[in-house]
Amino acid sequence: MNTASNPHIATAKEAGFLAHIAYDSVIFGFDGQQLKILISEYHNTKLFALPGGFVKRNESLDDAVRRGLFERTGLNNIYLEQFHVFGSVERYVPEIMEQIMVGSGKAPTPEHWLLDRFISVGYYALINYKDVKPQPDELSDSCEWYAIDKLPRLMLDHRQIVTKALETLRDNLDKKLIGVNLLPERFTMKELQMVYEAILGEKIRRTTFQRAMLAKGILKRHEKQFTGKSHKAPFLYSFETPQ
Amino acid sequence: MNTASNPHIATAKEAGFLAHIAYDSVIFGFDGQQLKILISEYHNTKLFALPGGFVKRNESLDDAVRRGLFERTGLNNIYLEQFHVFGSVERYVPEIMEQIMVGSGKAPTPEHWLLDRFISVGYYALINYKDVKPQPDELSDSCEWYAIDKLPRLMLDHRQIVTKALETLRDNLDKKLIGVNLLPERFTMKELQMVYEAILGEKIRRTTFQRAMLAKGILKRHEKQFTGKSHKAPFLYSFETPQ
Repeated sequence: MNTASNPHIATAKEAGFLAHIAYDSVIFGFDGQQLKILISEYHNTKLFALPGGFVKRNESLDDAVRRGLFERTGLNNIYLEQFHVFGSVERYVPEIMEQIMVGSGKAPTPEHWLLDRFISVGYYALINYKDVKPQPDELSDSCEWYAIDKLPRLMLDHRQIVTKALETLRDNLDKKLIGVNLLPERFTMKELQMVYEAILGEKIRRTTFQRAMLAKGILKRHEKQFTGKSHKAPFLYSFETPQ
Repeated sequence: MNTASNPHIATAKEAGFLAHIAYDSVIFGFDGQQLKILISEYHNTKLFALPGGFVKRNESLDDAVRRGLFERTGLNNIYLEQFHVFGSVERYVPEIMEQIMVGSGKAPTPEHWLLDRFISVGYYALINYKDVKPQPDELSDSCEWYAIDKLPRLMLDHRQIVTKALETLRDNLDKKLIGVNLLPERFTMKELQMVYEAILGEKIRRTTFQRAMLAKGILKRHEKQFTGKSHKAPFLYSFETPQ
């Protein structure tokens, strides 16, 4: 939202944005143990939210989301997917946006475009946790990783947006090689299993998981390198280059 | 669009709608032979388009789409699903909307909200062809069924929207019982196969299809009734009530 916060600007057109259209992004990362998402906290409000933003009048929706993610994570070429549009009337609560702007020292008039109703397009992103230094934007104190089973209370319908993103991830788990984007280039079978368990929200039997994964024919197993450590060190795998 | 066409109304707010947000609907029906969709033709323009519309300031996005479909088809409780948001800058061609409005005897100023940029949410609907009498709206001459392999040239990116809807239908074919919404309550195996073939765009071997469908355990076969006709009349099936 950083270019949209000049207090003298009251209409979306003057600000250079499309009115009524926002996006919210559920940015998944895996720290080797847990599935996490990025959450922003707004200055002086105790409000926690998904990183989101608006669409400039001369940019595509996808480009707007890519721009926002780049500003937040420094990453380009992120795996990004639309998953649902949130268009209920209940998500129109102008007092919340007012609170956020006031918390950052702005004084919006009631007609300010940011206080109007927004329909939000949900996107999820899968990124390699280690490549990222989360950056708060101008309105936010912080932008931090939270484990998906330990999220703070989120504003508006953002919790519902996270739930829907997870459902989509589950539905896509077998057909879209989710792991490619969440794991380092080489990983252990256990790490892969932990990604699956975190997304599915349930434990999987180790032998069942291993057999199913190997049967897909998408994993390449690498030779163990002699490191002087125990020969019980796990095998490392990588994904075969997709066709 | 029928409530949005008063020429004295220039802003979306005055018209009671959200600016910049539209929907386009791909309404699938099956006539027993072919998969078809509803296409509108605008007065005096030779422009063909998907039935679409706008969101009132006080209604949810889903309700706006349901309202539009009811106005077009007289049907409530339609099976309806969001599938993609179309947000490119290239779809902003104000001359086309101007042509449509002029064709209906309106004289919009360049600032008219309908001539501004729209991001469109694509929805697909599956309806029982026989229940429907398509109704053109105020801007349109006609609203007619067209076989999906014999569509007229569609305006803007509407052809791309149809393609994406079909892709989604294909992806969902096995998990969402698409046939329930496209077929009458009782149908032959051949009719079911024709629905699948139309969606997949390819022929399926009859025996393969029949075996796969029966193996799913979702079909109930009904006794043939004695009608005096040949006993070679095909069996009728219905879907088992979903769990």
